[in-house]
Amino acid sequence: MNTDIAQLVSIALYSPKPDESVAFFHDLLGMEISHREGQSVYLRAYEDFYQYSLKITEAAQAGVEQVTWRASSPESFERVAKRIEASGLGIGWTENDYAHGRAYKFCTPDGHPMKVLWDLDYFQAPPELKSNLRSRPSKRPLRGVPVRRLDHVNLMVSDVPTNRGFMTAVLDFHVREQKIGEGGVEVGAWLSVSALVHEIALMRDATGSRGRFHHVAFWYGAPQHLLDIADIFSERDVQIEGGPAKHGTTQAYFLYCFEPGGNRVELFGDTGYLIFDPAWKTVVWNVANEVDLEKSTIWFGGQLPKSFYRYGTPVAPGHGLAEISKQ
Amino acid sequence: MNTDIAQLVSIALYSPKPDESVAFFHDLLGMEISHREGQSVYLRAYEDFYQYSLKITEAAQAGVEQVTWRASSPESFERVAKRIEASGLGIGWTENDYAHGRAYKFCTPDGHPMKVLWDLDYFQAPPELKSNLRSRPSKRPLRGVPVRRLDHVNLMVSDVPTNRGFMTAVLDFHVREQKIGEGGVEVGAWLSVSALVHEIALMRDATGSRGRFHHVAFWYGAPQHLLDIADIFSERDVQIEGGPAKHGTTQAYFLYCFEPGGNRVELFGDTGYLIFDPAWKTVVWNVANEVDLEKSTIWFGGQLPKSFYRYGTPVAPGHGLAEISKQ
Amino acid sequence: MNTDIAQLVSIALYSPKPDESVAFFHDLLGMEISHREGQSVYLRAYEDFYQYSLKITEAAQAGVEQVTWRASSPESFERVAKRIEASGLGIGWTENDYAHGRAYKFCTPDGHPMKVLWDLDYFQAPPELKSNLRSRPSKRPLRGVPVRRLDHVNLMVSDVPTNRGFMTAVLDFHVREQKIGEGGVEVGAWLSVSALVHEIALMRDATGSRGRFHHVAFWYGAPQHLLDIADIFSERDVQIEGGPAKHGTTQAYFLYCFEPGGNRVELFGDTGYLIFDPAWKTVVWNVANEVDLEKSTIWFGGQLPKSFYRYGTPVAPGHGLAEISKQ
Amino acid sequence: MNTDIAQLVSIALYSPKPDESVAFFHDLLGMEISHREGQSVYLRAYEDFYQYSLKITEAAQAGVEQVTWRASSPESFERVAKRIEASGLGIGWTENDYAHGRAYKFCTPDGHPMKVLWDLDYFQAPPELKSNLRSRPSKRPLRGVPVRRLDHVNLMVSDVPTNRGFMTAVLDFHVREQKIGEGGVEVGAWLSVSALVHEIALMRDATGSRGRFHHVAFWYGAPQHLLDIADIFSERDVQIEGGPAKHGTTQAYFLYCFEPGGNRVELFGDTGYLIFDPAWKTVVWNVANEVDLEKSTIWFGGQLPKSFYRYGTPVAPGHGLAEISKQ
Repeated sequence: MNTDIAQLVSIALYSPKPDESVAFFHDLLGMEISHREGQSVYLRAYEDFYQYSLKITEAAQAGVEQVTWRASSPESFERVAKRIEASGLGIGWTENDYAHGRAYKFCTPDGHPMKVLWDLDYFQAPPELKSNLRSRPSKRPLRGVPVRRLDHVNLMVSDVPTNRGFMTAVLDFHVREQKIGEGGVEVGAWLSVSALVHEIALMRDATGSRGRFHHVAFWYGAPQHLLDIADIFSERDVQIEGGPAKHGTTQAYFLYCFEPGGNRVELFGDTGYLIFDPAWKTVVWNVANEVDLEKSTIWFGGQLPKSFYRYGTPVAPGHGLAEISKQ
Repeated sequence: MNTDIAQLVSIALYSPKPDESVAFFHDLLGMEISHREGQSVYLRAYEDFYQYSLKITEAAQAGVEQVTWRASSPESFERVAKRIEASGLGIGWTENDYAHGRAYKFCTPDGHPMKVLWDLDYFQAPPELKSNLRSRPSKRPLRGVPVRRLDHVNLMVSDVPTNRGFMTAVLDFHVREQKIGEGGVEVGAWLSVSALVHEIALMRDATGSRGRFHHVAFWYGAPQHLLDIADIFSERDVQIEGGPAKHGTTQAYFLYCFEPGGNRVELFGDTGYLIFDPAWKTVVWNVANEVDLEKSTIWFGGQLPKSFYRYGTPVAPGHGLAEISKQ
Repeated sequence: MNTDIAQLVSIALYSPKPDESVAFFHDLLGMEISHREGQSVYLRAYEDFYQYSLKITEAAQAGVEQVTWRASSPESFERVAKRIEASGLGIGWTENDYAHGRAYKFCTPDGHPMKVLWDLDYFQAPPELKSNLRSRPSKRPLRGVPVRRLDHVNLMVSDVPTNRGFMTAVLDFHVREQKIGEGGVEVGAWLSVSALVHEIALMRDATGSRGRFHHVAFWYGAPQHLLDIADIFSERDVQIEGGPAKHGTTQAYFLYCFEPGGNRVELFGDTGYLIFDPAWKTVVWNVANEVDLEKSTIWFGGQLPKSFYRYGTPVAPGHGLAEISKQ
Repeated sequence: MNTDIAQLVSIALYSPKPDESVAFFHDLLGMEISHREGQSVYLRAYEDFYQYSLKITEAAQAGVEQVTWRASSPESFERVAKRIEASGLGIGWTENDYAHGRAYKFCTPDGHPMKVLWDLDYFQAPPELKSNLRSRPSKRPLRGVPVRRLDHVNLMVSDVPTNRGFMTAVLDFHVREQKIGEGGVEVGAWLSVSALVHEIALMRDATGSRGRFHHVAFWYGAPQHLLDIADIFSERDVQIEGGPAKHGTTQAYFLYCFEPGGNRVELFGDTGYLIFDPAWKTVVWNVANEVDLEKSTIWFGGQLPKSFYRYGTPVAPGHGLAEISKQ
């Protein structure tokens, strides 16, 4: 994959209950706190190589503060920044973010805040966290069922083609899978710059809102760990929205839940499949067709509730979880 | 990863017992036979996208006939072919290989036969093999414990630095992990062009031979499947050399066995870890140091026997399995 | 556990599509055919020790022909036969059943046909099926995702207390778990004579019918195998009713599906928990209470559809799968 | 199984490093501390129903203080106590042990201290540990990779037939598997009173010592958890002696390690197989025969070192771990 973007670096989320949100990621998902500053806490999974992959900031409403991408090289960085600028969606340069070097900020057509950078800080484990497993940046934690790394983000969009087009034309992503509904309307797109099926997915927002956040996914790799965390969630009253079950799209063995601040979190229990074909043809699911509709969403396991298509953060008026479940 | 090679396409092996070799891959590893021609049988795993990933050809001795790589684009193809030609290790163009388009043949400094291509045939499932899981090129077989896809090859080399240097300078690979032994001698290198830790590994041949084959690895993803196939192998007298166990190097949960023709086969029971960092610094294991020596080879699980370092195909005189185990 | 019954031996089912039913158990669940006679086929899982654990007989309607229990000793056999006779539910002695010795036939208060025996034939593997794993009566099959052994049966009853009372007072079972609904009505009971949580479960039939069959369960032990068989079922259009998911009751990681003849089959993907306490106090779920209602049925995973409570075999008029799903 | 003993209740171990031993069981194996008294700490796994299953007491040397069995009923309790008394191995009655009622103390012919009881205290979870999973006596811990319950003990004996005979004739155990070596010498026996293949195993002590302790096993059920704990052990320098691998005998997927006090601990990663046949014929492995020797010990996975046959606690002079590994 020769692309100007190399990978997803981190996601910054807002939470109205920051202490509980941090406890969720730290105690149950076993993430490590690498920094605290102002109203923000920075965390990473034990196989995330950079200083942080998740930032939680106190705010009145849940939602996404920023998605950060790393370019493939300094040259790619310049190229992609120029393309963004030319697109009219550029916001400008910043050098002040914790653990991140000079970055170019922008937003998607729908308004989701993003930035791209080249320089950033790697996590340097203190002696007590150093692992003899040399490809592991810090020891496997003894808390909860620890996630291994950040995997992808999923954004709700008012219009898939426009936002998907921006991701491909400007940011250099490839469309790996796609859902086409009645009348040829594109209702979902899964895009990546690596062997992963997606570092980002775009889903049509059934409420018609703009710029909302659907979920962030952390990776387990082992299916058993989804069963383990589901057991713990059920016992400790963490709300599971769907799964453990398997999507047809992306082949992901998944679990969706809500962190205490209200943001949706996905836990990813295997690798799905990996794409190495440099001439990959987008897998198209025609969801106007009943077989594709059923198989793409749930290959096996329980169905997803309505909230999956309407609930996002910030919450759209009239579309809170309680309201949706009463419909 | 911006490289001129995109992926490993297939491996062609020689077998003195071709019928038994094919039965091993078909009946126990659940591979599908996609073609037969002359003394050769072509097979693929159910999530391999191309016409074949494994070719078995009858021959007096086991060993590797050819390793095939796909370039990242037509332009990359031309570039890499030119670099190979310039290296003096080029052999020439071929257009006659089954299911493969125009290709440039060459060999490693040690003499392992390889080729690179751009055009090749995708597997087109007949109706009865077509899956509703649209990213799966054919149905999951009901035989044995079916492998999902080709993962990587491991070659024995008389000299690691020379061969590793060829793979990086000429073929554009990145060195992901490395083992350095007494006196700074490089004894192993793991290289890739994708998020995988390796599509190819090079190990120093302890017998001093040149150009031998160590193993080909097929991917399961789920650790349970290694336990399942190990159970079946133990019951059906397939010789397991090592594992199920976990390497520190590559973090692979592995099993090594011998197919009936004598070639070593690895089954890969998880994903190890994936590399997305575009500025990845090679993980170096200093195996002159006892901790690194132990942890790099076996992170947990039983030790590997001497044969792992001396047995390869074709068999070096005096280094057959029975002879090594008596040492 | 000192009880007069020791274990569940086999279940005999009727199928209107016997060839397809046998193919389901043989090809997908990897069961072995040990005998054919008249309109019947006898099968066993590879770790079932007796000659058969499942008998499929052609009939106009799906349903249960017979459930067979083995007594704990010849003395227990006589004792339990006398108690059944005294209960008025005895039918009489039989000596003519294939692979089964002298047996006493009876039925539950609801009318489910059963028998109890002491003597029966053990499976004797022919040389090619003999395993070097000496506690395994025959080799692990290479077909489908092979089940390991028969686990339990679940019967629908018009009245739980009456049938549960018969199982405890006459057959010597212990009540391991119980669901009590609105107004103190017992809606389910899980009973066993061993460390298993149940060899038999009794569920109130929401249609008010008598003597129907809910499901038979075969055991996998490994959670991954439920994911494997679910993948295969989804690809080959076997109808999954629920799961893979986890019950609170019995802690079973389960999948429910329908074999082609229409009988419901459960696949059991772990061991739940085992009971060794000789003074076990029945675990009571008060399902009039919302938490218990939710947690007992689904500890985690997707919800069960209405059919789970109304569909049984033979099918009650107006309660076929298609009819229920339209309600 | 109609036997006078129903189950293994607890094991009491001596440790010269009690704080580190407790930390091992609490932090890594996720056990809960239910009591501290004098030089002793009492722990239980989260699915152990009684007040404790493991007692660690400070002492100069590692070893077993006591193995506690529960009778099948008050009548069985009296019967088994009388038989022990008649055997000449009785020690006498005690009523003073923490959480245990009136008990009869005795020892094996080899001198291992044991007791049998009927009355004992069940664990009563405080509100914060109470689970909504009603068959689970306390919440699943968030520490380490928590074991689910005590499984079995393994004792080294100077003479297998004598000690095995005591377990069957006096304590009412059944011999499930047996290893017979050169000259018909019985070198191992696996005995149980339930569906488990063993609550106790007896192994010939290759050092000729008497009354030593080989290991205690705690149960995971899920194979993945053995991989998880092995990963953690490797990273935190806990010494793994063997595994994860699978025994032919008992079909156990196992890992052996040493707790900091020097006692061997087994972690049991699946259920092996369960025995329900009331007329079970002992599975005999003839280990004078090479196939049985190999397959009984290791069905698959790495070989066991010499220490497995010679190291026990208390350590026999000249047979410490370091000394054995130099042989």
